[in-house]
Amino acid sequence: MKSLLMIMDGIGDIRDGNRPTPLEAARKPNIDRLAKEGSLGLMHTLGRGVKPGSDTAHLAIFGYDIFSEYPGRGPFEALGTEGIHLMPGDIAFRANFATVDKKMKITDRRAGRIESASAKKLEKYINGMEIEKTKVIFKQTTEHRGVLVLRGDRLSGRVSDTDPHETGAMIKSSEHLDTSAEAKKTARIMNILTNEVHKKLSNAPENLERIKKGLHPANMILCRGGGEYFKVEKFEDRHGIKAACVAGGSLYKGVAAFIGMDVVHVSGATGDRYSDYFSKARAAVQASKDHDLVFLHVKAGDSFGHDGDHDGKKSTIEKVDKDIIPMVSDNFDLIVITADHSTPCMIKGHSGHPVPILAYGKLVRKDGCVNFNEYEAAKGSIGQIVGEDLMQLMLNWMDKNNKIGE
Amino acid sequence: MKSLLMIMDGIGDIRDGNRPTPLEAARKPNIDRLAKEGSLGLMHTLGRGVKPGSDTAHLAIFGYDIFSEYPGRGPFEALGTEGIHLMPGDIAFRANFATVDKKMKITDRRAGRIESASAKKLEKYINGMEIEKTKVIFKQTTEHRGVLVLRGDRLSGRVSDTDPHETGAMIKSSEHLDTSAEAKKTARIMNILTNEVHKKLSNAPENLERIKKGLHPANMILCRGGGEYFKVEKFEDRHGIKAACVAGGSLYKGVAAFIGMDVVHVSGATGDRYSDYFSKARAAVQASKDHDLVFLHVKAGDSFGHDGDHDGKKSTIEKVDKDIIPMVSDNFDLIVITADHSTPCMIKGHSGHPVPILAYGKLVRKDGCVNFNEYEAAKGSIGQIVGEDLMQLMLNWMDKNNKIGE
Repeated sequence: MKSLLMIMDGIGDIRDGNRPTPLEAARKPNIDRLAKEGSLGLMHTLGRGVKPGSDTAHLAIFGYDIFSEYPGRGPFEALGTEGIHLMPGDIAFRANFATVDKKMKITDRRAGRIESASAKKLEKYINGMEIEKTKVIFKQTTEHRGVLVLRGDRLSGRVSDTDPHETGAMIKSSEHLDTSAEAKKTARIMNILTNEVHKKLSNAPENLERIKKGLHPANMILCRGGGEYFKVEKFEDRHGIKAACVAGGSLYKGVAAFIGMDVVHVSGATGDRYSDYFSKARAAVQASKDHDLVFLHVKAGDSFGHDGDHDGKKSTIEKVDKDIIPMVSDNFDLIVITADHSTPCMIKGHSGHPVPILAYGKLVRKDGCVNFNEYEAAKGSIGQIVGEDLMQLMLNWMDKNNKIGE
Repeated sequence: MKSLLMIMDGIGDIRDGNRPTPLEAARKPNIDRLAKEGSLGLMHTLGRGVKPGSDTAHLAIFGYDIFSEYPGRGPFEALGTEGIHLMPGDIAFRANFATVDKKMKITDRRAGRIESASAKKLEKYINGMEIEKTKVIFKQTTEHRGVLVLRGDRLSGRVSDTDPHETGAMIKSSEHLDTSAEAKKTARIMNILTNEVHKKLSNAPENLERIKKGLHPANMILCRGGGEYFKVEKFEDRHGIKAACVAGGSLYKGVAAFIGMDVVHVSGATGDRYSDYFSKARAAVQASKDHDLVFLHVKAGDSFGHDGDHDGKKSTIEKVDKDIIPMVSDNFDLIVITADHSTPCMIKGHSGHPVPILAYGKLVRKDGCVNFNEYEAAKGSIGQIVGEDLMQLMLNWMDKNNKIGE
């Protein structure tokens, strides 16, 4: 029994007046065929009315407790980045190259949308630094984005962002979020790092060259989402099935790596609107040969939702329907399609509205629903579930759940 | 985004044979228009099958834990009574003027339905007493009803009622409900108070006059629902929104005051069947100018339910539809209509049957339901929720919920 869990990030939406949602508007004959043969429902990933982040939503869906097993966003990004190997106790942050003026005010949060190749060359000024016997690991990922890791004794993830999250603001000093010596030390290191990095980047020949060319120098890094990495029980040990992850975005690969799923590298899976869905579908089928469950992540719907781009969201669904569903429906025995959260075009951000869920397979009861969308899913026989229910339901539809009692 | 939460007390009911429920029978075009444009569901205020009191039901709906944050009925009544300012540690009771004979047997639980003005004159015999260095505060409220507060060191709310809750029974002695010194002391004070109050009231000229006129003397007070007042986290701090309360009944104003809502005084809001709904609606709209959420309470449906008066309950709904809904639907962006519990006419008391809930607003998904009643609500897309879900759902419909994770 091979099963697929496809998460269409942020795909849930709300009708704006009479305008149908992207799921209602999209032509998606292949998905709707699965709906006709299967059953629908609604999922409140973190509970009713709760607005989930993508990271916590995925953790909950995979059967992990977001209060005791969530390390923060930074470690996930680091785990999803090639070339970084986290060790327990490491503190990881998401980082952005940015431009600051002499007064440390941010004039561009993306350092003039610096391209990947140029940003990559600046990595060496940060990676390998040492502050208070703490090693600094830094990797540029895409464009202005990167990951920063502190490795040393007695550190803590309970420190605030140096990123003020808006252009025109001053860079922030990192503050300890609890009164532990570890948090105080880590905040101090982050603030020393901010100053040292600024000096090094300001004097880097690559940046002097950018200034000469009239480009914004990448003379600062903004750090956010700090958290301490720790190990959790592996997905296979928790649920008794082997799982693989097919995703483009580093966050999703990072969540999968955190819980010990095998992360498949797919060239062409970029995590953006140009991602090669056909290659991802092929990789999912390939991964199913030695895994019970394949987690396939599709990002674009969420990005379009953040932009309020209804057409873009609709076209993502149509592309999935055309490029992914025919191949996976020929090759998987159980297919579950859902989302991590809603990203309604009206809101241009995440919301706590429940996401539709579709289950198709031999052991799934049919319920007479014919169209996979938020409104019809409310009538489906799966009912209204929470994220932590999903793995248990999937195990049951795979007949791989353990009996409780005799 | 201005939102209204209207609680129609006890409005949930059950069909008696083929007789429709009051909500089904009532002509309520305005409410049903909101139903058509919004969505329905069922709410189990305190959990499935649990029969709620009005006080605990409201607490749960507002997102408070009834096991650790419920002070008992007395403090709510005291907080809802003008002129009483509770301090943490105060023990508050609901109190009734009653008539007892020489053997302390209750011959009339309402002292011959004594009218407010006469009862008010007896206040002075009780208010200001001091027993074991404990100050007695007493306020008459409406007719035979009042509130008694004990203020002093080392008291406890864990004492039993002196009110036997039936005519013809002897007045009860207050017993300590745990073995603490505080509970023993408080019970002792209550029993001294019972005797002293009886002496004072029996000799009061106002009562001698009543006897002369052939009226029942108000020669005793019966106390019940004792509890210790303590402070809880304010509603605004818990949920991040500012709320106002528009209610007639002192209990509902008391619950609102307990959680730090602003309580609006509305002349004409009496909490009974003659309450001026038009003034309440106007006060709600007014309060929305400087509050994110207005809690509007309508009592009469519950009182009619207790009387088994199906027609009365139906007419309450029709009056709400006519006098409240048009004005509020023009002025609020989100409207939620529900109840604290069912008070079925067949039962003439509270029951654990879930109450219907209606949500209407731009961010609420429509579900095709057209009539706000208990039976149609069972098919609604809100599904079946519990009381503690409601605030989170409302925050989501207001887009004021915090993201968990990133």
